[in-house]
Amino acid sequence: MSAPIPTLTEDLARLLNPGQVSAGESILEQHSHDESYHRGGRPDVVVFPESTEDVVKVVRYAAEHQIPVIPFGTGTGLEGHVVPVRGGISVDLTRMNRILEVRPDDFLVRVQPGVTKNQLNDALKRYGLFFPVDPGSDATLGGMAATNASGTTTVRYGAMRDNVRALQVVLPDGRVIQTASLAAKSSSGYNLTALFVGSEGTLGVITELWLKVYGIPEKTVAARAQFRDFQACVNAATAIVGAGIPVARIELLSQEFVTAFNKYKGVNFPVVPTLLIEFRGSEQGVQIDVELAQEIARDEGCLSFDFVIDEEARHEMWEMRHNALYAFMHQFPGLGHMSTDVCVPLSKLPDACTFAQRRLQETGVRGAIVGHVGDGNFHVSIAIDTNDPADVQRVHAFNEEVVHYALQLGGTCTGEHGVGLGKMKYQELEHGPALAVMRAIKAAIDPQHIMNPGKLIDEIPH
Amino acid sequence: MSAPIPTLTEDLARLLNPGQVSAGESILEQHSHDESYHRGGRPDVVVFPESTEDVVKVVRYAAEHQIPVIPFGTGTGLEGHVVPVRGGISVDLTRMNRILEVRPDDFLVRVQPGVTKNQLNDALKRYGLFFPVDPGSDATLGGMAATNASGTTTVRYGAMRDNVRALQVVLPDGRVIQTASLAAKSSSGYNLTALFVGSEGTLGVITELWLKVYGIPEKTVAARAQFRDFQACVNAATAIVGAGIPVARIELLSQEFVTAFNKYKGVNFPVVPTLLIEFRGSEQGVQIDVELAQEIARDEGCLSFDFVIDEEARHEMWEMRHNALYAFMHQFPGLGHMSTDVCVPLSKLPDACTFAQRRLQETGVRGAIVGHVGDGNFHVSIAIDTNDPADVQRVHAFNEEVVHYALQLGGTCTGEHGVGLGKMKYQELEHGPALAVMRAIKAAIDPQHIMNPGKLIDEIPH
Repeated sequence: MSAPIPTLTEDLARLLNPGQVSAGESILEQHSHDESYHRGGRPDVVVFPESTEDVVKVVRYAAEHQIPVIPFGTGTGLEGHVVPVRGGISVDLTRMNRILEVRPDDFLVRVQPGVTKNQLNDALKRYGLFFPVDPGSDATLGGMAATNASGTTTVRYGAMRDNVRALQVVLPDGRVIQTASLAAKSSSGYNLTALFVGSEGTLGVITELWLKVYGIPEKTVAARAQFRDFQACVNAATAIVGAGIPVARIELLSQEFVTAFNKYKGVNFPVVPTLLIEFRGSEQGVQIDVELAQEIARDEGCLSFDFVIDEEARHEMWEMRHNALYAFMHQFPGLGHMSTDVCVPLSKLPDACTFAQRRLQETGVRGAIVGHVGDGNFHVSIAIDTNDPADVQRVHAFNEEVVHYALQLGGTCTGEHGVGLGKMKYQELEHGPALAVMRAIKAAIDPQHIMNPGKLIDEIPH
Repeated sequence: MSAPIPTLTEDLARLLNPGQVSAGESILEQHSHDESYHRGGRPDVVVFPESTEDVVKVVRYAAEHQIPVIPFGTGTGLEGHVVPVRGGISVDLTRMNRILEVRPDDFLVRVQPGVTKNQLNDALKRYGLFFPVDPGSDATLGGMAATNASGTTTVRYGAMRDNVRALQVVLPDGRVIQTASLAAKSSSGYNLTALFVGSEGTLGVITELWLKVYGIPEKTVAARAQFRDFQACVNAATAIVGAGIPVARIELLSQEFVTAFNKYKGVNFPVVPTLLIEFRGSEQGVQIDVELAQEIARDEGCLSFDFVIDEEARHEMWEMRHNALYAFMHQFPGLGHMSTDVCVPLSKLPDACTFAQRRLQETGVRGAIVGHVGDGNFHVSIAIDTNDPADVQRVHAFNEEVVHYALQLGGTCTGEHGVGLGKMKYQELEHGPALAVMRAIKAAIDPQHIMNPGKLIDEIPH
């Protein structure tokens, strides 16, 4: 890296407009962290591009002066992806928030990266369409692509990688590429789309996305299934998905989460492990699916299986699920948040979940399990006292145990949150010699290491 | 490239076993081409590895001596991928044909690259499972992954890229990597799986595949829908898929193809544009789908809509479809085969097909249209007289017109056959500045350009 440039803010204000550049204290602070406990740097300046051309100007300037570029969306990440560990330019993309094109006949939309998932879905309603990928927060679609986000509906519709048809990307030297055509399939050239999805801003800045959208299904039914113990709950989830029932969502809440919900929302759900399930399809199809799922849940000793048919009640239920993290953290004012995010082959899920549950009890870590169990992905949400070295050590040790166990089972250290700062230490163990290939790709595309340095697999050269 | 090594065959016979190495005339000839008209080189030697370790030995030797390595499966490719344009070692993987592991609970199998799709499906039957990707020939799964093959069922189950969970790859320097974990989703590191799928042997040799498999559906029904004219047939296909009916297959045959079938098989189907459609699901689900599809076909002026319910008759119908290419070429003894392979967004399909049909008539090219119309992908199968420069020129000009038109519509030059030798000339136009990124990746992973040189995006440095 070169020395700091004293005229950085002025230079960028000249390249863009003064209203698009800020080095104000509160702006720098806001762009120095996400929703996780990760801290450790702030940007030298924040820019607010309004077009691809603006991004090109900023990136070219950064390349010329070897200044780090850190793309920033809503700042709702959970692994410190947006923390400017070496200062630089935080590129806030929230002003690039236009839906550029809706092509109902092709089930495609073209959006700018600052459009959020809720904004897109509101706009799609009048076409009878929706975009399925559904992480906890109302993140920007650019940020969701950058981390290969997924969420509650992935069991049915896939993750971001499955739902991005093509990206426009500004490369680390300012060139602009489109990663793919709009064809539903292609065998032409290397697949760059899947490479840039999940690259966490380390290969370029995403400036446009072509996304797959879906017809809103005729019928949607949700259900809440309650179980006496955790094991039965996990087993039921695994069995329902294993039976091939095309559930649209199947989410597990440990009883600690139900407690947190009840407190947070002033409600009174039975404090037992619970599955939240959603079925979508034709009237008849949904009925068949529901009956089969109910039967399996009963076989696993389900205490009750309650339907939530009314749209508003269903919306409330999923809002509650999306607020799980806040509800949990609400119990621990002043503490930071950490979340484990392992994903394992479905048959190993009961094993992995039970292990985490047992180690929570044994270690005294303040955590609770919630999960996208249809994908084999679950989180332990953890309250961490970053001022207490003993707690930090205990929590890190727990996280490490959960990750190592998942890797042994053929899983990954992160199913959807991404690597960011928090999971870099597991990359060697998870990928082995494949990590060198990733590093070679990084070096080939970003030889100056200016794109979000120090994240994902990028050990900054000294 | 370095000078030829006089002891090449002996060296390899020492590294492996003598029975695994051949420089016999007929073996060299067999490994010098695929099923297309592409010619232009033969290997110096063919090796038959029986394990990943064997492949490592061969690749290390090749790397040391800078000798080209060309992976070879069943040789059923259609763009000359296996043609050794600079000589070298053809690595025939057909002896690595073991199914290593079936994990029904995770809907995963692990196979060696020489296992063919039919071999795998025969083995999966007793588990009630199947592997969906279904190209025309009984290709090896390694070859199918290398070209991101797809075929008749892609409209429902996706292409190879969607169905490969992870790969074991021998890199150009002999290192062995696994591209991913077995988790259903991951945000850990760059996605190498999707990069190696479709890389056509230019980045390494695939030595193991983890593939997704599916439960055999309760009910399968096929139908043959016949139309007065081509336009109505394409429109019906587009409308059926656009309505969201989850057809498992929807294949278009132009009347020229029906003529070819009738001759080839001695049958007597009405010589009109025809759709072959397959429905899969629950008893009730299939019935609903069939009724809706039938209604749409009638709205588009369908002449008749005949069901094929009996398993054997269905099998026969799809065998016929798989033999389309042979049936067509059977009419032109002595001529070579070329196939266009464009894929366009669904709404542009009628436009693209009609254009190709019209240009066939106007140019006198000996071709007929057949297509995986649910994906927006269609082929013009063409008989080409490689000894007649005028015909070669006419056919190439036609191919180029079809490709350029598809690219204008937002499509790709190849939906499933891959680039190989035949589509390299369209890479610049299709990918623009993204091509430089692909080249940078190639150079980073295979700096000596020994892996299948001269294919895909690899312009061999002189």
